[in-house]
Amino acid sequence: MSSVFSTGEYQERIKKTKQKMTDKGIDLLIISQPANMNYLTGYDGWSFYVHQCVLVHQEQEEPMWLGRGMDANGARLTTFLSEENIREYADDYVQSTIKHPMQFVAGVIKEKGWEKSVIGVEMDQFYFTHHAFTSLESSLPGARFSDANTLVNWVRVVKSDAEVEFIKRAGKISEKVMDAARKAIKVGVRECDAAAAVAYAQYAGTAQYAGDYPAIVPLMMAGEATKTPHLTWTEKIYQEGEAVLLELSGAYRRYHAPIARTLFLGKKPPKLLNDTASVVLEGLNKALETIKPGVIVEEVEAAWRQGIAHSTVVKESRIGYSFGLNYPPDWGEHTISIRPGDKTVLQPNMMLHLIPGIWYDEVGFELDASVRVIPGGYESVYDYPLELFLEG
Amino acid sequence: MSSVFSTGEYQERIKKTKQKMTDKGIDLLIISQPANMNYLTGYDGWSFYVHQCVLVHQEQEEPMWLGRGMDANGARLTTFLSEENIREYADDYVQSTIKHPMQFVAGVIKEKGWEKSVIGVEMDQFYFTHHAFTSLESSLPGARFSDANTLVNWVRVVKSDAEVEFIKRAGKISEKVMDAARKAIKVGVRECDAAAAVAYAQYAGTAQYAGDYPAIVPLMMAGEATKTPHLTWTEKIYQEGEAVLLELSGAYRRYHAPIARTLFLGKKPPKLLNDTASVVLEGLNKALETIKPGVIVEEVEAAWRQGIAHSTVVKESRIGYSFGLNYPPDWGEHTISIRPGDKTVLQPNMMLHLIPGIWYDEVGFELDASVRVIPGGYESVYDYPLELFLEG
Repeated sequence: MSSVFSTGEYQERIKKTKQKMTDKGIDLLIISQPANMNYLTGYDGWSFYVHQCVLVHQEQEEPMWLGRGMDANGARLTTFLSEENIREYADDYVQSTIKHPMQFVAGVIKEKGWEKSVIGVEMDQFYFTHHAFTSLESSLPGARFSDANTLVNWVRVVKSDAEVEFIKRAGKISEKVMDAARKAIKVGVRECDAAAAVAYAQYAGTAQYAGDYPAIVPLMMAGEATKTPHLTWTEKIYQEGEAVLLELSGAYRRYHAPIARTLFLGKKPPKLLNDTASVVLEGLNKALETIKPGVIVEEVEAAWRQGIAHSTVVKESRIGYSFGLNYPPDWGEHTISIRPGDKTVLQPNMMLHLIPGIWYDEVGFELDASVRVIPGGYESVYDYPLELFLEG
Repeated sequence: MSSVFSTGEYQERIKKTKQKMTDKGIDLLIISQPANMNYLTGYDGWSFYVHQCVLVHQEQEEPMWLGRGMDANGARLTTFLSEENIREYADDYVQSTIKHPMQFVAGVIKEKGWEKSVIGVEMDQFYFTHHAFTSLESSLPGARFSDANTLVNWVRVVKSDAEVEFIKRAGKISEKVMDAARKAIKVGVRECDAAAAVAYAQYAGTAQYAGDYPAIVPLMMAGEATKTPHLTWTEKIYQEGEAVLLELSGAYRRYHAPIARTLFLGKKPPKLLNDTASVVLEGLNKALETIKPGVIVEEVEAAWRQGIAHSTVVKESRIGYSFGLNYPPDWGEHTISIRPGDKTVLQPNMMLHLIPGIWYDEVGFELDASVRVIPGGYESVYDYPLELFLEG
């Protein structure tokens, strides 16, 4: 009974979700992706290592939360749902080889008389396994299953003003997080000690806004590891002449503001790093200049591509994606991908993370922008210099 | 080429995995669970927000790593695999609605001539979605699919001596982590600031051993939130007379040593909390006394149950599980569950986390033991007092 947003905010989200369900002919939605569960009900707990879900039915006003018994009090504490819509399964369903939590879910669906529905499930979201699907399918022979994989994600793509405010608070934390990283990363320091300083800044937040855990731990590649983007820290000691890639974020109540920068430990970065930095900055600025409502996402990528065409920099992967509310393993939203073929039309209050990372075998470079689409253009969700930092 | 363990250690793991494959009539194993991928190859990167896998075929000595292009250098840096066994897919497979990374995987399987195999997949592991399964199935019509859900997890259940050493190092970190929590949690402090101190201790580790990120963030329930186990911190300020549940862990190179304790902020805990603490401690000690090779897991739970039978404490959920190597969302291994019906016979170098948490509507209590089965008994993987802490 103490969800983070107003009940009206959740009702609006549910209304939009039901509209998309209508468009796709779906009567009942089974949502297992933790951010989608949170988005529709407020539920916030680290319980997604067991099966759980939220049900949304066209003919019922409130969603239902279904999860493990010990987590039901967590649902009572963090959602706006009434008691009858919080349902808990017995503990012997957990990691059992003879029964599956989705059989319990099917039981609730039958109790509600929804077993002959068209049921939308998230067929390619982590936390909804193949066995979850087959358990539902065999327990509900009268149902027809439909892929609702990113249905709620696409409702999430345009943020409410209340969500924008949360992302800006996360942005304030991100500024402190990057400051903390720059302060901690010095020649002679262990990577793990710098990571500790980063985590401290992430969790503590600001004096006004408590930090939350980001959906991705600090990605901090140094030296040889800068040839790849997704490694974490080690016990190694930072060396003079190393580059350090930082992909970080502040988080406020599960909302993110990703921030990535590159440090060089020394006065004279190698030419390849310097050249790459200036090309990436040029391309990133070109991409940013195109962002405004009405623009098609792939045009943003095309501007980047055109901006770096004069150089030898090659970038085959997407240059960004939509972000906001999320849980591990990803703060990306799995909706917009900034790449050729993405025909999404930009709207106000979409949030884009542009991160055209370059990972050469010799050295990598990362620099990003986390921006909100606003009428006529964009604004950054934090204030941080766009440059390669030389830490002497 | 710089995996954490010796190549011989990985070869031993692969040999045991192949033996289990033989037992189940499986020719080819497709492994998506990140801890299992790490266990078989050394691969360690936060890239599990996209599809990736390790293949193990009976007739090929080395496993294969298959993942996203930008992560291939991560595989080169962290695994012992030769170049021909690291295969990368193009970026337009990522979160695409028109193609799926498992189609790429199927392509490699065909190239190797393995398309008519009996293929084991992890049907109820997060990170292997329903769509991952259907993509494989439709791309490999000549294959027969078999559930290999916890096949590798059950190889992991008995640790090598090298793994035991890593868990003990994690245990050293766990001691520091709990010390840091007790030092930081005081009346008047924000929960988020205490969480920051905990994270600092987790990531920094000890002077000798760098900390790694635990698979679960600090679970820190205070006051009203102690009625449930899986909530994280908030901006609230600790109050006199509150209980605080701490479920934490140190981690060393992805190995864990979970530690849970309860603090009471004041001199005189309520009777319910005191009574629950002494009953749980009594039951936990009874359970621990039974642990030795040859004992059946459910007997450990029965001893707990008998130990608390004289009291009003009721515990319906399992009292623990096997732990070790892992990634978010869970440091539990999804093998042993300490509850009625678990017929696993204890062997030396199994690792059990006993955590008989109690969550009443008025207050909760958590206390745990993380132990290694050794000849004739057990030993704790860290040294920490088993009591309710009064923090004045």
